[in-house]
Amino acid sequence: MKIVQIGGAGHAFYAYNAIKSHAFDFAALSCGSHGIEAEGTNATLADLQRRGFSPKLYSDWREMIDSEKPDIVIVNPWFNDIADCAIYALDRNINVFCEKPLAHDLEKLTELEAAIANSRGKLAGMLETRYEPTFTAAKKLIGEGMIGEIRLMDSRKSYKLGKRPDFYKSRDTYCGIIPWVAIHAIDWMMWLSGKRYTSVTAAHSSRANFGNGTMDITSAALYTMTDNVIATVTADMLRPSKATTHGDDRVRVVGTEGILEITDGALTLLSDNSGGKVVVPNEPARDIFEDFLNVIDGGESDLTAESAIEATRWALKARDYADKANLEVNV
Amino acid sequence: MKIVQIGGAGHAFYAYNAIKSHAFDFAALSCGSHGIEAEGTNATLADLQRRGFSPKLYSDWREMIDSEKPDIVIVNPWFNDIADCAIYALDRNINVFCEKPLAHDLEKLTELEAAIANSRGKLAGMLETRYEPTFTAAKKLIGEGMIGEIRLMDSRKSYKLGKRPDFYKSRDTYCGIIPWVAIHAIDWMMWLSGKRYTSVTAAHSSRANFGNGTMDITSAALYTMTDNVIATVTADMLRPSKATTHGDDRVRVVGTEGILEITDGALTLLSDNSGGKVVVPNEPARDIFEDFLNVIDGGESDLTAESAIEATRWALKARDYADKANLEVNV
Repeated sequence: MKIVQIGGAGHAFYAYNAIKSHAFDFAALSCGSHGIEAEGTNATLADLQRRGFSPKLYSDWREMIDSEKPDIVIVNPWFNDIADCAIYALDRNINVFCEKPLAHDLEKLTELEAAIANSRGKLAGMLETRYEPTFTAAKKLIGEGMIGEIRLMDSRKSYKLGKRPDFYKSRDTYCGIIPWVAIHAIDWMMWLSGKRYTSVTAAHSSRANFGNGTMDITSAALYTMTDNVIATVTADMLRPSKATTHGDDRVRVVGTEGILEITDGALTLLSDNSGGKVVVPNEPARDIFEDFLNVIDGGESDLTAESAIEATRWALKARDYADKANLEVNV
Repeated sequence: MKIVQIGGAGHAFYAYNAIKSHAFDFAALSCGSHGIEAEGTNATLADLQRRGFSPKLYSDWREMIDSEKPDIVIVNPWFNDIADCAIYALDRNINVFCEKPLAHDLEKLTELEAAIANSRGKLAGMLETRYEPTFTAAKKLIGEGMIGEIRLMDSRKSYKLGKRPDFYKSRDTYCGIIPWVAIHAIDWMMWLSGKRYTSVTAAHSSRANFGNGTMDITSAALYTMTDNVIATVTADMLRPSKATTHGDDRVRVVGTEGILEITDGALTLLSDNSGGKVVVPNEPARDIFEDFLNVIDGGESDLTAESAIEATRWALKARDYADKANLEVNV
C-alpha cells in the first residue's frame, strides 16, 4: 500500500502503528491549502521522520495526489479544508482515512456524500474512541442485552485548553467545539445504541475563552433518537492543566435492565442481575487503521462512511442550532 | 407555632425534626382534593402518630385551614393540587411550606405569584438538596472564587422506580418527571451559580415505563443562563433496585479556574490551585424547615419564594417544550 498525508492538524497518528507494522510505503506529505509555513508542515515532517518514515514533501496537495497516485490518503489538514481534500481523492477512486468532521458545513457534507457514492475508494472517519478497551467492552455488554432496552445516554468530553494553534481562533478555519470535540460522543452514542438521531438542540459559548478569538470553549447538545431515546453531550476545553489526563471522556447508558458508565478509563455496570455495581473487565484495544484496511479489503466492520457522515451531520446541525440560538438571545 | 398539613404525597417530613425540637403544635392533617381513601391519608396519620404527633384529621383542607387558623400550612397533596392549596393559605396570610413544583402549569403559577405578592404569609419550596453537606460545601467553595467564573454545569437525577402510587400514571394528577424530579437540579444550578435561566429545550419519554400509564420515565433539559452559562440535567427513574442508594444526585460545575463535582455524596475540586483533584470536606447538614422559620422571622436566607417560583417556571417550560416536541416528532 502506498500512503500519503495531507496536513498535520489532527489525528493522522492513528494510522502510523499499522503503517509501520505492515511496512507500507509512506510516500509523501503535503500541507493543506494554507501553505507549509502557516501550517507548520516542516514540524509534521520532522515528526514523521522521527517515527522512521521518509515522505517526500509537497507544497500542493493536489499535485501530490496526482503525482503519487497513492492507495490511501490520510486527510488531516485544517478542519475546514477536510471535505475538499477528501472529495478530490474520492473522485480519483483513492481510499481516504479522514479527520472529522468530514465537512465544515451541511452543504459541503452533501457534496462529500455524492463523492463517496460515486467512488470506488472507501472512506473512514477518525472517530477512534470506539476502539478503546472500555468502549469495546461496553458495546459487547449492550449486545449481550445486559442493560435491556437503551432509553437515555449522557456523555462528556472535557479537554485541556493548552495553547491552541491560531487557526482555532476563527470560524473561517475552525469548525467549532461541537463538530471538533463533541462529535466523538455523537458518534459513540449512535454506535453503542444502534439508534439514529431524529432531532437536536444545542448551545455553545466563546465567553472567557482565554483570548482565543471566536473559538467556543463550552457546549451542550440534546438529541432525540429513534425509539424515543434521549441523548446529551457536554463538551468543554476548561479541564485544568494539572488534571492527570488530557481528556475526561465519559458516557452513561441507561437501559431498562441496567446502567453502564465509562469514567476514568473504567467501565461499570449497575444492574439487579449483576447484584449492584460491578467493574466490567476491559476488552483488548483495537486499531482503527487496521480496521480501515479490513474495510478496504471488503471486510465487515462498523467503520462505515455512513456512520462518519451521520456523526458529522448531527454535529453540524447542533452547531448551527447553537449559532442561531445565540443570535436570537443576542438580538 | 401552630402547624397543619395537607396530604401525604411528597416530602412533608422535611419539617418534622424542627417541629419536634421546637415542640410546636402539629394541630391537624387533611387529605388534598381527592379524599382520605384515595390519598391514603389514614396511613399518613398513622405515620405522624408514630412520630409522636397527634393531629386532628380533616376530610376538607379548606375547612381545616378555616377552623384551625394555623401559622404554617405544610402543602403536600397530589402534585397538581399544590398551587390551589398554597393560594388558599396565602390569601389568609398563612405561611406555606410548599412541595414542588409550586404549580402544575404556567397559568396556575402566575396566579400563585400574585397570591404571594399580596400576602403577609411567606412561602418556601421543598427544594431541599441545597441543604445537604456536599451542596453546602460546593456553594461555599464557589463563593470563595475557587473555580473562577462558572461557564458550564451538568446535573443528574436518577431514582429507583419502585412501586409508584396510581396518581403518577396520569398527567391529570402527575406533573411529569421534569417538574417532579429534575426540578431539584434546576434549582440547585441556579442557586450554586447565581445565574438566571434564559432559555430551555427538553425531551422526555414514557416509553418502557413498566406499566405506569403516561408517566414519563426519562428526560433531559438543556438551559442557557445569563452570561452565556450552559446547563443540562438528565432525570430518570431507571436506577436498579439493588443500587446502594435510592437516588443518584450528581452535579458538575465547570469554571474558568476549576471544576467541582458532587458524586456519591462526596464533593471534589479539580483545579491547578488545588494541585489536581482533591476531596473537599463536607459542611454540616442544614435543616430546611429551620431556615423557613428564620425566613418567617424576617431573617436573611436564600430560601426565597422567588427562587422556588423560578425553579418551577423553568421546570414547567422544559416539560411543555418536551410535550410539544414529542407531538411534532409523532406527527
